Amino acid sequence: MAVIEIVEMSPRDGLQNEDAVLSTSDKVELVSRAVRAGARRIEVTSFVNPRRVPQMADADELMAALPRYEGVSYAGLVMNGRGLDRALAAGVDEVDVVVVATDTFCGRNQGMTTEEACVLAASLVSEARSAGVFTTVTVGASFGCPFEGEVSLDRLREVLGRVVDAAPDELALADTIGVAVPADVTARLALARSLTDLPLRLHLHDTRHTGVANAVAAVAAGVSTLDASIGGAGGCPFAPAATGNVATEDLVYLFGRSGQSTGLDLAETITAAEWLEERLGTRLPSALLRAGGFPSG
Amino acid sequence: MAVIEIVEMSPRDGLQNEDAVLSTSDKVELVSRAVRAGARRIEVTSFVNPRRVPQMADADELMAALPRYEGVSYAGLVMNGRGLDRALAAGVDEVDVVVVATDTFCGRNQGMTTEEACVLAASLVSEARSAGVFTTVTVGASFGCPFEGEVSLDRLREVLGRVVDAAPDELALADTIGVAVPADVTARLALARSLTDLPLRLHLHDTRHTGVANAVAAVAAGVSTLDASIGGAGGCPFAPAATGNVATEDLVYLFGRSGQSTGLDLAETITAAEWLEERLGTRLPSALLRAGGFPSG
Repeated sequence: MAVIEIVEMSPRDGLQNEDAVLSTSDKVELVSRAVRAGARRIEVTSFVNPRRVPQMADADELMAALPRYEGVSYAGLVMNGRGLDRALAAGVDEVDVVVVATDTFCGRNQGMTTEEACVLAASLVSEARSAGVFTTVTVGASFGCPFEGEVSLDRLREVLGRVVDAAPDELALADTIGVAVPADVTARLALARSLTDLPLRLHLHDTRHTGVANAVAAVAAGVSTLDASIGGAGGCPFAPAATGNVATEDLVYLFGRSGQSTGLDLAETITAAEWLEERLGTRLPSALLRAGGFPSG
Repeated sequence: MAVIEIVEMSPRDGLQNEDAVLSTSDKVELVSRAVRAGARRIEVTSFVNPRRVPQMADADELMAALPRYEGVSYAGLVMNGRGLDRALAAGVDEVDVVVVATDTFCGRNQGMTTEEACVLAASLVSEARSAGVFTTVTVGASFGCPFEGEVSLDRLREVLGRVVDAAPDELALADTIGVAVPADVTARLALARSLTDLPLRLHLHDTRHTGVANAVAAVAAGVSTLDASIGGAGGCPFAPAATGNVATEDLVYLFGRSGQSTGLDLAETITAAEWLEERLGTRLPSALLRAGGFPSG
């Protein structure tokens, strides 16, 4: 039986693009509900400029407020040295360093070229490792860019090669704007695998309803660490058409009914999504939140 | 390059469960928009009791009003001899005969047991064939039942065997309530293939966001005739949690970007979905309707 590791993104990617700003105590509640549902890796916040992403302004305060649970790892997203310093001081277990695969999107997201972001990522990874913190580099727009359109395999190969040189503990490919189809997942994970033996991870958005199919393709390709967000919350502030991450409960249903374990409880995950939807005051795109599991009862 | 045949269900399955009842002229417009987008097989209506399904009360009138297009086939759903007589008199090119795989659901849907429905299907198929009309038998609830829960492979084998004996031109398996995962599709299409050489077809609902992944699994299993509905409209009046058919445009995007041809134009399909959404006055669940294709322009 394949074991799928879902990295819970709702407190970070799920909230950073919502109009409603959740209070720190609501974020603590969201994390505790994720843990109750079975999440063991949670990206809890990002240590970025609070003027640019006000939803994450309480990153340090949140980390201080979060209870610790045995076996649960908290990750923080960082994009520069100042963010890393804050993340390390806050006591994260993991840092997620972002490099965007196209210069235009990278410029809008973090004010530098992809090459500059790769150089920076190498130094952030090195510093985090020295601090004993697990490192992931996530390559944004690995499947397409909202500004430049197609991202060629050659371009991706070049960027992944530079990221592999940075030697993180894990390499994530992100379909930031939700354009990938399973054939893309197969091809691009194979490309990544041809470049490195690092553990691979896939970050999916369900913008074009291919998220679940892409998750299936990833697992078939031997990549079983997948990002997802309770309720399917989220988006990307710099990619207007992007809707939420693939919903955690949609993956829990998919894999559970396929005889593959995620370690998450479907009913608890749906309950968490109901709570989050109520808190955000918006309709979240998750399917299981509407339909419920099967067979019911 | 695989060629995918999408059977357009929006005028029938897409409308039968909507609160809004479209006028006959609006249905003609919907069909013409589907044809313009590239649809070549369209289930335009059902010949059922208008008191039970008032949205389809104009079946005969609609067939009379529909323009004929070269190479476009119109199908009508039938559940009994009276419906078949109406369908044949109306000049359909195909009839879609329904058998539901569980007795409880079959009873609610058509007032008889599955066995009785199989016997009836055999006589309807025979009569339609005598009239020179192409016949499909669709086995509803092939992946799960809203009343009985799991439908075992043994039960499905038994029902499919009886349907194969009826010798339709095509055999469709329907995930009427949208519970299937790709592993189910693989297993149940293999079961059907083990029983017959008939052309197989799959009817998907995206109730749990597995519709696109299931379509991928079907094509991988060699089954490339798939039902879909513009906008993802639809549901099932006797399966309350069921939401729409998998959206035509979601499949057009998926397959198009996978290098597989559906013969449909994505932009025209989305335009049709926008029109249908406006006409129904409801938010349709299609993803491509919201996000648009990629790369755009």
